[in-house]
This record gives sequence, structure tokens and C-alpha cells, in this order.
Amino acid sequence: MLYRKWGSKEDKVVKYTSSIKDDLRIVEQVKKVMKAHVIELFLSGKVTKEEANKLLYEINSFTQVDPSYEDVHEALEDHLIKTTGGAGSSIGLGRSRNDHVAAALRLEMRDETMELLESILAFRRTLLNKAEEFKSTLFTVYTHFQPAQPSTFGHYLLYVEEEVSSRWQMIFHALDLVNRSPLGSGAIVGSSANLDRRREASMLGFKDIVVNTISATSSRADLISVVMEVTNLMLAISRVVEDMILLSSKFVNVLELPETHVSTSSLMPQKRNAVTMEVLRARISKVVGYLVSIMSMYKSIPSGYNLDLQEINPLFWNVLDESKAGIEVIHDMIKEVKVKQVKPDNETLATDEAELKVEKGMKFRDAYFYVAKLVREGKFSPSITYEQSLLRKVVEGSPSPERMSQGISLAKKRLEEHVNMLIEYKNKVLEEEGKLRLIENDILQEGN
Amino acid sequence: MLYRKWGSKEDKVVKYTSSIKDDLRIVEQVKKVMKAHVIELFLSGKVTKEEANKLLYEINSFTQVDPSYEDVHEALEDHLIKTTGGAGSSIGLGRSRNDHVAAALRLEMRDETMELLESILAFRRTLLNKAEEFKSTLFTVYTHFQPAQPSTFGHYLLYVEEEVSSRWQMIFHALDLVNRSPLGSGAIVGSSANLDRRREASMLGFKDIVVNTISATSSRADLISVVMEVTNLMLAISRVVEDMILLSSKFVNVLELPETHVSTSSLMPQKRNAVTMEVLRARISKVVGYLVSIMSMYKSIPSGYNLDLQEINPLFWNVLDESKAGIEVIHDMIKEVKVKQVKPDNETLATDEAELKVEKGMKFRDAYFYVAKLVREGKFSPSITYEQSLLRKVVEGSPSPERMSQGISLAKKRLEEHVNMLIEYKNKVLEEEGKLRLIENDILQEGN
Amino acid sequence: MLYRKWGSKEDKVVKYTSSIKDDLRIVEQVKKVMKAHVIELFLSGKVTKEEANKLLYEINSFTQVDPSYEDVHEALEDHLIKTTGGAGSSIGLGRSRNDHVAAALRLEMRDETMELLESILAFRRTLLNKAEEFKSTLFTVYTHFQPAQPSTFGHYLLYVEEEVSSRWQMIFHALDLVNRSPLGSGAIVGSSANLDRRREASMLGFKDIVVNTISATSSRADLISVVMEVTNLMLAISRVVEDMILLSSKFVNVLELPETHVSTSSLMPQKRNAVTMEVLRARISKVVGYLVSIMSMYKSIPSGYNLDLQEINPLFWNVLDESKAGIEVIHDMIKEVKVKQVKPDNETLATDEAELKVEKGMKFRDAYFYVAKLVREGKFSPSITYEQSLLRKVVEGSPSPERMSQGISLAKKRLEEHVNMLIEYKNKVLEEEGKLRLIENDILQEGN
Amino acid sequence: MLYRKWGSKEDKVVKYTSSIKDDLRIVEQVKKVMKAHVIELFLSGKVTKEEANKLLYEINSFTQVDPSYEDVHEALEDHLIKTTGGAGSSIGLGRSRNDHVAAALRLEMRDETMELLESILAFRRTLLNKAEEFKSTLFTVYTHFQPAQPSTFGHYLLYVEEEVSSRWQMIFHALDLVNRSPLGSGAIVGSSANLDRRREASMLGFKDIVVNTISATSSRADLISVVMEVTNLMLAISRVVEDMILLSSKFVNVLELPETHVSTSSLMPQKRNAVTMEVLRARISKVVGYLVSIMSMYKSIPSGYNLDLQEINPLFWNVLDESKAGIEVIHDMIKEVKVKQVKPDNETLATDEAELKVEKGMKFRDAYFYVAKLVREGKFSPSITYEQSLLRKVVEGSPSPERMSQGISLAKKRLEEHVNMLIEYKNKVLEEEGKLRLIENDILQEGN
Repeated sequence: MLYRKWGSKEDKVVKYTSSIKDDLRIVEQVKKVMKAHVIELFLSGKVTKEEANKLLYEINSFTQVDPSYEDVHEALEDHLIKTTGGAGSSIGLGRSRNDHVAAALRLEMRDETMELLESILAFRRTLLNKAEEFKSTLFTVYTHFQPAQPSTFGHYLLYVEEEVSSRWQMIFHALDLVNRSPLGSGAIVGSSANLDRRREASMLGFKDIVVNTISATSSRADLISVVMEVTNLMLAISRVVEDMILLSSKFVNVLELPETHVSTSSLMPQKRNAVTMEVLRARISKVVGYLVSIMSMYKSIPSGYNLDLQEINPLFWNVLDESKAGIEVIHDMIKEVKVKQVKPDNETLATDEAELKVEKGMKFRDAYFYVAKLVREGKFSPSITYEQSLLRKVVEGSPSPERMSQGISLAKKRLEEHVNMLIEYKNKVLEEEGKLRLIENDILQEGN
Repeated sequence: MLYRKWGSKEDKVVKYTSSIKDDLRIVEQVKKVMKAHVIELFLSGKVTKEEANKLLYEINSFTQVDPSYEDVHEALEDHLIKTTGGAGSSIGLGRSRNDHVAAALRLEMRDETMELLESILAFRRTLLNKAEEFKSTLFTVYTHFQPAQPSTFGHYLLYVEEEVSSRWQMIFHALDLVNRSPLGSGAIVGSSANLDRRREASMLGFKDIVVNTISATSSRADLISVVMEVTNLMLAISRVVEDMILLSSKFVNVLELPETHVSTSSLMPQKRNAVTMEVLRARISKVVGYLVSIMSMYKSIPSGYNLDLQEINPLFWNVLDESKAGIEVIHDMIKEVKVKQVKPDNETLATDEAELKVEKGMKFRDAYFYVAKLVREGKFSPSITYEQSLLRKVVEGSPSPERMSQGISLAKKRLEEHVNMLIEYKNKVLEEEGKLRLIENDILQEGN
Repeated sequence: MLYRKWGSKEDKVVKYTSSIKDDLRIVEQVKKVMKAHVIELFLSGKVTKEEANKLLYEINSFTQVDPSYEDVHEALEDHLIKTTGGAGSSIGLGRSRNDHVAAALRLEMRDETMELLESILAFRRTLLNKAEEFKSTLFTVYTHFQPAQPSTFGHYLLYVEEEVSSRWQMIFHALDLVNRSPLGSGAIVGSSANLDRRREASMLGFKDIVVNTISATSSRADLISVVMEVTNLMLAISRVVEDMILLSSKFVNVLELPETHVSTSSLMPQKRNAVTMEVLRARISKVVGYLVSIMSMYKSIPSGYNLDLQEINPLFWNVLDESKAGIEVIHDMIKEVKVKQVKPDNETLATDEAELKVEKGMKFRDAYFYVAKLVREGKFSPSITYEQSLLRKVVEGSPSPERMSQGISLAKKRLEEHVNMLIEYKNKVLEEEGKLRLIENDILQEGN
Repeated sequence: MLYRKWGSKEDKVVKYTSSIKDDLRIVEQVKKVMKAHVIELFLSGKVTKEEANKLLYEINSFTQVDPSYEDVHEALEDHLIKTTGGAGSSIGLGRSRNDHVAAALRLEMRDETMELLESILAFRRTLLNKAEEFKSTLFTVYTHFQPAQPSTFGHYLLYVEEEVSSRWQMIFHALDLVNRSPLGSGAIVGSSANLDRRREASMLGFKDIVVNTISATSSRADLISVVMEVTNLMLAISRVVEDMILLSSKFVNVLELPETHVSTSSLMPQKRNAVTMEVLRARISKVVGYLVSIMSMYKSIPSGYNLDLQEINPLFWNVLDESKAGIEVIHDMIKEVKVKQVKPDNETLATDEAELKVEKGMKFRDAYFYVAKLVREGKFSPSITYEQSLLRKVVEGSPSPERMSQGISLAKKRLEEHVNMLIEYKNKVLEEEGKLRLIENDILQEGN
């Protein structure tokens, strides 16, 4: 109970407003931020090396978070005050919970987002490998959930990879905005302690700073962009999930889901229910609801920090956790799903038939009506097979063998580029963070 | 692992789809439902009294839920099979997880909703008591967050009570639809075991049955109505919460929140932040998000049970828990909030002045323009006081002393009606449930 | 430009905030409210009969709404001022746009909701008629979109009717709260003009008044309850819509949608796409989004009127319009949908087989495992037919012929009760409104 | 009625599913897409130059859209068939409504997004100019809507600009993904007509193609990213809108909104209601609701085109239209808003006082408690003024005069970079589109 001087000692209210349980998620980041602050206080001459030494040592020794505090920031400061003698009472200078929590949130979001991006890359790699494996496996694609035209399951998987790839790029862009430091901005207007905000930022691996101190302390918009783009990714995946459920239904009988993804009924022993996909479908709705909560919490609160912002934090992690788990589940599914032998549906060759007529000189719309009439009268019989139909799909992005090879090759190249982008980004962060550890070690060793 | 015969033994997938953690909330209801099923099996001659005795005894002894099961239903049935000899293998007859979980959910929702309705009644009672206490405490009401006209804080509190009262009625109506039994409907079409669904319903205190077995096993619409109406209540409260935050700001300085509801800053010691109200404001956004998740999960899933429905359950309880906690917090706030002495704002008497001109023979719109001109030119000076203004508010529902007394009296009468409605409803449920306990005791004693 | 004295004459801002376009929807209600106000002014001695005569005459002659006004209330008052000599300048007494718009909204919502309730009753009647027609038409019901057990299409339709019936009841309850008068409450605290709010209410067919003047002028919660319950109805319907799309897919081939509800492709002439159902599915998402907008607009605005409330109004009508259109479309679909001859899926008889074993003395779970093993080994062959399976479904709400008859009969009884409830409710409103017309005619004739 | 061969001629159903009214928005884009298709048919030898000439001429002459068609694509093709003799019947080759509507949507979204980005740049320029004007205008910033510390209104405006700038970047990234061509992908698998998809893309100014034909025809995820990022921008603006409403309230009296943005009451002539800001606040909720509708429509529909996608289109434009209008309104407001002379609130100097104590050797937390005690006892009196406080705020991003100059200068540099990025992007698009017009002119002239 360090700050709550006007406030309640009553459990009820402290409990209602306390974030201490949710703060456990970011406790390591909070400690890292405090280290950067302490080192900056030392570098700018506000604390002595000896004081810095004690403070860093005690930050490292802070491992238990007493749940009776309002939040982790108060708990950590109180710990430092109690254990370092006078030194702890200095760390309030030039900082506030507002800039410290913002910094810890951005660090956590940055690191979690990089992890998520990695798991998406792994999923994309599987999609491309499977696209190659199923390159010529017949599959009837559909529009309006009606059989449409012959294709291959590899073509379907390439579609999934392209969808995921575009979302990956947007999440990566959002990451870049998140990766900016608010540290040193105090409660809202900065302070008189001439801390070097860019030096602090670099110790935490941040690429840049959020310049204005009001933005730095009270904006969550960059983090919301990550959440939005991740939600968009999950929406794209939700369509694939729906495909899995529908096509594996015994009513349709096109896909066979792996045993590990189905379950049966307590009353009907014959059932093979696509339970992981149903749960994932629902969890994506949960993600949508979290985004709505976040938007509703953020909308129209006055500028500057409001405690509403604290309530947003666990929702950020919920979105990331659900999405990571969801990507793992669909990834695992795609690794094992099997395509049943397709029973060709002749009518799906109607479009080919019309195109063949065009090649023989008929105008397309006339050919279309000609074939349509045959279909309606039940007299339609195609002159080519599924395989021949595929060979004829010559435009880029089509399921013909040649275009499939090209598509896989393009997608692989793009994937490798993305892999390298992320590795470089991550290395840059690690390298910068290394500086903090070097200075920390230097101060800690000096102290001994 | 009782049913998952096709499915995975792999932890990952079981863990992803398992509801066992969320099921802890309804385990007592699940046991009650199983008891009704066992008694009905006995009454309709499907199990012997001795078997029923063993089964009831072991249902009572089921207190530990092994988290490796898919859900509590499987865990309970397996427990019964393992502990009762053959008897446990009979209870699968005429039931399915689908009707059992639906019954347990409705029981839990019914009981929680009755509790919520009680806590709303307590809040309303406080509002009316406080309305009496602040009956003539001056307070400037506002529209567009601009000072509008003189009123009293008691009048404001009567408004809050009326808002809450209407929502109470809708929640009560939704409760009545929830309180219907799906039990005996099996997986989706009922069964050949001629169980008496209405007798089972009555043992669980249900008022009626959901007739059609597809509805009974797979509809969640009644529960969604409760959630919607509770959300609507919280939205009404959100406006009051916003009032508390804004009017207690030092910028406005009209209300003084109790010490227990404010907190200060780690950097700015003068701050008195309305932290409980900010958290409550955000939590109401959380409730809105939960409703959106629920609607998104429920929308467009095919009829019949889908595992998506399982994912809705924890959201139901989240909405109720957040709302209950929120009502407690605002209730506690209203008990202690103080009104600062109002500095009358003369311009809020402009409307009275126009009405006074009308009494002297001017047409209203002319009087309005006359006064408006004075206001704009800064020459307006009212000829009456706030207190005199209040005396003049003669229409029903106004803040004049007489109309306030009438309003409080009407509201109290309505409150007592609602209190009695709920007591009667609850007693009826308890009375019916008593029957189950009587038969249970009878069977259990017989067995000894 | 009657009131905007401080404000802009600039088109841009007036255009941005003007509700005049949306107000067209409620112009007749606004006129009715103004008539009640004028008559009340007359009855309470604030205007003479001659003035009332002129005012009523000119209210009736107000048919063109000049779009340059802020809203219809300003336009109407200005019309009355310009056309009635002094009389028009009196009508500002004891009223405000805040109570007048609230009254008009509640009238419109009441009348539209009664219409909606009627169209739902018509839909339910069709469902019951069709349930009778398809009483014994074989149909495989499903859970998790996997074939589950034999049933009849009539049984499916009874399920739909029961879902809709419960939602009907909740909408009816919400209607009853909407049907209360805010009239006479002025801007927020009522006024010194001693108007009889209950007499005014009765002239408009309102059943009661919203007592507190702050509630009366600024609450929209009752209207939001209607919107929520209508949304819940549409969610229930969304599942039926999904069934129609999936089961009519050539992949599944169980239902045949009427020609009027399908369309084909510009490239693939064989396609029979369930276009009306797809549009309806999307429109229900639109309704969900409207509800979210409404909740987001209403949440956390300060008490008292705010112009945000004006922006909610068109969304109310959007929800009702979309829902009415949607009910018509699904109603039309259900009238014509055909069931294709079901190819029995033997495995859906597995549960029956287990139940048969129970009748021969096996315990249920043992019978289940016995059958399950046969199914998994591909050796399962049922000993009964679909028709025999149906005969065995003896619990209430099941698809056996007897239970179907009982279900239809219960549902019909409930439908007739609801029909009568609505007729009575509507008649009561009309009767009360008749009083207003009597007085109006009396005053108008006197004047001639 | 070109394609609907199975379907209805009944008005009701056609009307329900028709998008013709919404298609008016994209009719010019649809024509442009058709031109690229015709030119590509010509370049790849599928139609003669003479045919291409006729087709291009008649595309240009297509100005009236008959509302009895299902959509604009059918109307245009039918127009071409009727007016060009045989040529029109050829254009169905290698195309479908699915790829054509996707192309038109992306063109429209691209062009509208570039416009939106321009209007945001203009708003940012105003913010920076105003930040300079109000660089040293005293302003008390707040957290938790409680006065926090002295700052300047210029500092506040710089915060707004930084928020908007980050969102601008995300919208720009989303634009880049939208600007890819789906053209040539047919209904879902491409076609046998060997059209050069990259040549077609370049004629429409697209930067790249969406490769996979399933993605190309049925994904809307890139467009959803634009909508999400625009929504995020509007959320950031919603906080500024709330500030305007609260700070201009007579209760707070810190800002004076321009006359053109306020309105008065029909009953209370003294009111100056912040009506444009209230409407904008509500409209941002509308945007949130549109996003929810879009997510709900898109979620879990099967892959491939579904008619649900058609229902999303008007919502895309609604979001852009509301956002553009909203940015204009807040832009106009910021141009004219005035800051009233701030009455310094001494307690907001408490933090400075603690920092001063630190400079004199006290530890920060001790200094904080020392000052806090004075504040609580009502004995606090600051030793510096607001102006002196500002001078002391030395960290980057603070409101000290020096840091303000630096902040403005950084922000201006960033703004100019963004202006140039957009100009270049737009020029590239226009340049590429120019090619289409060149070929078009060439073909059209040849024909004469």
C-alpha cells in the first residue's frame, strides 16, 4: 500500500480495482523496464553506482508478488524501498506507473507478437509442403457451398497460405509501431529529471520512441492494431475451419479428419464429430468478442491515463493466447487431414464444356446457354475428365500442374523472405537488449 | 475416457476441447440432474430400488473431478460405473450429455439469476432510501453534459431506480423461460425409454418443460435472453457510473465519492481518481464483449448440438459474475456518495423565467426568445431561486417536494411487489425441489 | 431555424447533426404527440378552444418537412407559429423536444413491434401447418453436422416453432415496457405547466407513464430491450437458415429449395445457389452489428438527453426492418421447401440398437460399447427400420407419431393464446387512441 | 435477367437478394474492369479489334443501370450483348462476376483509401499548425479526468497528431495489400482462356496480383484490414471528441467550441450543446458496429464466393464515408476551438514540488509523501508557477518550449515524408492506369 493514500484499506474495493493477478503476465517485463530506468538514473547522475547496484540486485530478487498490492509496480517499488535502504526511495524520480506499465505492455506485446509471427511461419511452411504433396489430388471446389469446378487439394492449401501470408504482413507492420518506447514520460507530461528517453529505449530493444508524453502514457492504439490484425487472421482461418467441419461431415464425406481431432457421442456410438474444429470456430468468436470489449473500453475515454486501460491488458493476452492455440490446432489438423477419393460430379465440368464450345467458335454466352439447357434437362455429359479440366486451367494462380508449380515456388520465395525479415527483426531486438544486460552486469559486478 | 472411442488420447487435443475446468461451476447441478434421472429410471421401472440407492449414494460421493476427462458428465458416469457394479452401466439409458448439460445449465442460470434479481432489489431499496434522504438536496441536472435546470439529488436517484426497475422486470421474464426442463430429450430425438419428462422436471423445480427434443437439447436462446437483459441493465448503470466519474472530477466538483472508492497517483499526490467507477465502466464493456462473443458463437451454427455451445457456457457465468460484482460496487458507492453544496448557476433558471413570463400573458416561444436574448447579452438575472424553481415543477415525476413524495411512494410500492414476486417464485422452486430430496432420502434410507 | 440561436447557419454542421431525413419515419407519430399536447394544453386551460382548433388543423396540414431544419420538431413548431398567428407560440409551454421525441419513438416502436409480433404469429402458423404436413416425412437429424438419428421433417419444424414462440413472448414483454408515456416531462425536470401526464398518455394509447422525468426524457433502455429480443429471435432463425443452405447443397442433397429462392452462376450454369438464405444469413449479422452500435452509443453517455440518442433512432428501425424482411423470406421459404426421399443411413440406428439390447437385459453402457465395436469394425447392421425407430421414440417432444400429434396440438394451443393476447393488446391501444380522435374531432368541428 | 435461369422471376426474392442499389457506388470501377478484360481479350486474340472497339464504345455508353437486374455485372453484360451484336456474347469468356466484383471493390477501396489518407494528412497539417499557435498556451492536462499537471494546448495537439500519424501508417500498409488484382480468376479456379493476369492488373494500376484464384475471388481480408485500421483511427479520435465535449461543458469551462459546432435547446435558451461532437461520438460507435457486422458476416462462411460477401460491400463504404465525414468535422473543430484563460490549479504543481525537493537532496518517494501530506492537510502552496513548471519539463516529448519546438519539427518532418509517400503511390497508380486509357483510345480511334 504505497500510493493509495486517500483510498480504501477495505478489501472489497482494492480487490475490485487491483490488477495484481493480471500483472503476473508482465512481471518480467516490469522488472526489465525498472532496470532500464535505474541504469538511466545512474547514467544521468541521479543515483550512484552503488545505489544502482543495490537496486538492480533487488529487482532481480523480486520474485514473489504480494497480492495485497494494487499492482505490480507498487509491489516492486515497495520491495525496493524496503530492501535497499534509501536507494529505493529514489526510483520514483522521473517515472510513473503510467509510463512504466506502457513500456512493459509494449515489450510483452512485441515479444508475444514475434512468437506468434513465428508460429504462423511454421504453419505456412506446412501448408506449402502439403500443397506440394496434394498438388494433383483431385478436389471439387465450391462457391455458395455448392460444387463448382474441379481443382486439387494442393490448390486449396495454396489459397490458405496466401490468405495467411497477407495477414502475417499486416501483423508485422503493427509490431513495428508497438516496438516504440514510452519510457521516461512520467504520468503525462514527462518530468524535470533529464533522462535520455532514446537511450532508455535502446536498452530495451525498442526501435524508436513514442515522442509525445501524452501519447506515450495513455495510447493503446498500436497494441489495438496488433489485436485487430490478429483477429483478421483468425477470421480468415475461420473459413478454413468451417470447410473442415462441413467437408468431413458424413453428409459430404470429402475429407477425413485425423482421429485425434474427432470425438464421438455418449449416446450415438457411430458419430465422428469434428470437435477441435468446432471449439476453434467458437474460440474465434471469443476473439471477436475480446476485440469488441477492447474497442468499447477504449472508445471515448478522456485522453490521458484512465484505469479502464488496465482492464484492457488481460484481453490483449487473451487474444494472443487464443490465436496461438488456434493456429497450433489448425496447423496440427492440416498436417494430418486426408482427402477421400473424389467421386467426380459431372456437372462441375459444365463450364469447361462451354469453354470448349468457344474454342470451336461459339460465343461464350451462347455456349453457356447451350450447356445450361443440357444441364437443366438432365442431358449433360462432359467430354473431358477432371484431370483434363485441370490441364486446361492456364491462367496464373489456377490449379493446372504448371501453374501449381509456379504458385508453390512463388509462395516459397515469399515465405523465405518473411522468415528472414522476422529473424533480422528479432536479432536486432536481442542485440539492443544485450546492451542493457552488459551495463547491468557491469554495475552488478562493480558492486561486489 | 468413456466415450472418445474414435478420438485422441493425445493430451493436446483433449486439452483443447475439454470443458472440465469450466464444468466445475455446474458440478452440483450436474449431480442434481443425474439424481432426477436415476429416480426417474427407478420410478419408471428401469432400475431397481437397490440400484437407485447405490447410484444416489455414489452421486453424492462424487466430489473430485479428474481433469483428464472430456467433461464432468463423462467423469460422473465413469465414477458411477466403477463404484456401483452394474448399476452405473444403466444410467446411460434415455439420456445423453446433450440433455443433461442443458438441464444443468438451466438450473445454474435459474439459481444465479434469482440471486442477481435479489441483489438488484437490495440496490433499489438503497436507491429509494437515499432518494428520501436527498429529497431536497439541490442538484443541477444536465443534458448534453451542460447544466440544464435545478433539481434535487433525490430526483436523480429516483431516476436511477426507475431505470433499474424496468430492467429487473425483463430479467424476471427471461428467468421464467429459462426455468423449463430439457431433461429426458436424449441426444436430439428423445429415446425409447418411456421416462416421464414432466415428473423429472418437477423434481428439479422446473416450472415447465421445453417440449421439442431438438429445442431441448440444442437451444440456448432462453439463456441468451437473460444475458441480453442483464447487459441492458449494465448499460443503464454505465450512464450512472459515467455521472459519478464526471461529477466527482475536481473540474466539476459536485459529488464527493467515498474514500473507499478513490485512489491516488504514484507521481501526483493530489489526485483523487474515481478508480472503482473507471474499472466498472470498463467491465461493462467486457460484458458487452461477452454478449458479442455469445451471439457470434451461436449465430449460424447448424441446428442440433454443436461443441461450440460448450464454449458459450463460461461466458454466461462471466456476464453474471461481472454484473453481480458491478452492482455491488455501484450499490456501495451510492450508499456513501455525498453531494457538495451546489453553487447555483443562474442561467439554469432561464426556462423558469420564460414560464413566468407565460404566466404573465406572454406566449411561450416569445418569452423564450426574450429570455434567450438576455442570456446571450449577459444581462440575464433570474427572479426566483433554485428552491422556488423546484416548488414550481408540478407535473408528475418532477422534483417538486410533492411530486418527489409521490414518486418515492409509487416506487416503494413497485419495489415491494417485485420483492414478493421473487420470494414466491423462489419458494415455488424450493418446494418442488424438496420433492426430489424426499424421494432421494426415501431411497437412500431404504437401502440401508 | 427556430432554436439554433448560438449555433451555425453553415450548411456543413447543420447537415452533419440534422436528423431531418431520419425523422421522416416518425413524422406521423410526432404529429400525434403534438395533438395530444395541444389537447392537454386546452384541457388544462393553457390555450383556448379556438387556438386548439387552429393548432390541430395546422398539425394535420403539416405534410412537407423542409430539410433545412435541425429536426422535425423544430419544423413542426415553426410551421405552427407561422400559420396559426399567436397560437403556435404557445405550444412550447410544458414540452421540449426531449419528451416529444421520446414519446414519438415509443409510439413508433410500439406500433412496429405489434406488427412484427403479428408477422411472427403468421410464420408460426405456417410452421405448424407444415409440421402437420411433414409429420411423418423421414428426415435424419444431426448433431455436430453429422447424421445423428432418424426423425421427421415435421419434428424439425416443431422445433423451429418452439424456438420462435419463446422469443415472441420476450418481445411481447418488452413491448409492454415500451408502451409507457414520457410526455409532459419537458427537457429533464418537467415544468410549471400543470399538465396531466396520465391523461396525455391515455390519449396516445399508452398503458402507463414513465414516471421520473429524467428517465422519461433520456432513457432508451426499453427500446433496447425490444432490439435485443428481436436480435435473439433472428439468431435462432440464423440456425435454421444455415440448415437450409447446408442441407440443400448438392453435397448433402436432403432439401430442395423452391426455384424462387435459388440462383445460378454467370460462369457455372449448373449451380443452384441458396441466395436468399445467404443474404438472410448476412443480414442477421447486420442486425447484430446494429445492436453493437446501439450498445456502444448508449454506453457511458452521461444521464440526461445527449444528441447521441438521435443517432440511435435509425438503427432501431433498421433492426426492425431487417428482421421483418428476414422473417418474410424464411416464412416464404418454409412454405415451399421440399424434402427429398431420405436414403437411410444405417449407422444412425446404432442408438436404437443399443436400446434394443437394453430391453433384452443388457446394461446400457455395455450395449453401447457392443454396438460401437460393430460400427467401428464396419459390421453393424440395424435390426429395425427408420419407421420402426420413430415408433419407439416415446418421450414427450419426440418424433413418434403420437408425440408429434401431442406436440402439434400443444403448440397450436399456445399459438392461439398468443394470437389472442396480441389482439387484445392492440385493441386496447386502438380504443385508447380513439379518445384522442374524438376530442380532436370535437375541437375541429367546434372551430368551423 | 441474364443468368438467373433456375431462379425466380418473382419480384420479392430478386428484390431481397439484388445488390443493384449498392452497386451504383462501384459502377465506374466495374466499367473500368470490363475494359481491362475486353482489352486483354483483344490482346490475347480472343476478340478482334473491331469487336473490342464496339465493346469499349458500349461500355462507355452504359450509364443507366436498370434496377430489375440482380447486379450491375449482369446489367452491363446484357447491355453489351444487346448493343454489340455478337461481340457482347464473347465477354463472358475467362471471367465471372466473382473476379470482376472483387476487382471493382479493390479499385474502389484503393481510390477511397487514398482520398481518406489525403484528408488525414490535411488534418495533421492543421494539428501541427495549431500546435505551433498554441505552443505556450497554458492547459491543464488530466488523467482519470482529474487535473494532473500543467501543460500547453500545443502539447495536447501534438499528442493528437502523433496518434493520427501512427494510424495513417497502418492504413497505408493495408492499402498496399488491397492494391492487388484478382482479375482473370474466373469463378474460383481461373479458366482455359490464357489471359495474362499481370498485364490486366497493370492496366488497372494494381501493383501486384492476388495469385491464387480462390483467394482472388473470395477473400475480403485485405479490405477488412483497411476497415479495421480506419476504425482504430476513429477510436483514437473518439477520445479527442470526448475531451472536446467535457472540456467545453460549462461545468469545466476550459475550451470554447466555435459557434458553428454548438446548438441550443428548445426549452433552455442558455444551453450551448456540443452537438457535432456528440454526433461524431455516436457515429464512431456506428463504425464499430459496422466492423462487427463485417466480422460476423465474414466469419465461418465456407471458402469460395458466398452471397454474404455482397452484403459486406455497402458496409465498407459506410465505414469510409462516416470516417471521412468525421475527420472533416473534427478537423473543422480543431481549426476554430479556443482555449479559455486557465485558472491554475495549485495542486497540479505537487509533483513539481516533490521534484524540487529531490533537487535539494530528498529522495523522491520521501518528497512525494512530504508533499502529499501538505496537500491532504490543505496546506500545500507551490513555490513555482505554471510557466516555471513547463520550463522544467526537460525530457523529449514534454511541453517545455524547447521540447515543443523539437516535437513540432519532428512531426513536420514525418508529415512531409508521409505526404510524399502518398503522392508517389498515387502517381504510380495514375501512371499505370494511363496505359489502359492509351490502349482504349487506340482501339476506339481505330474503329472510327
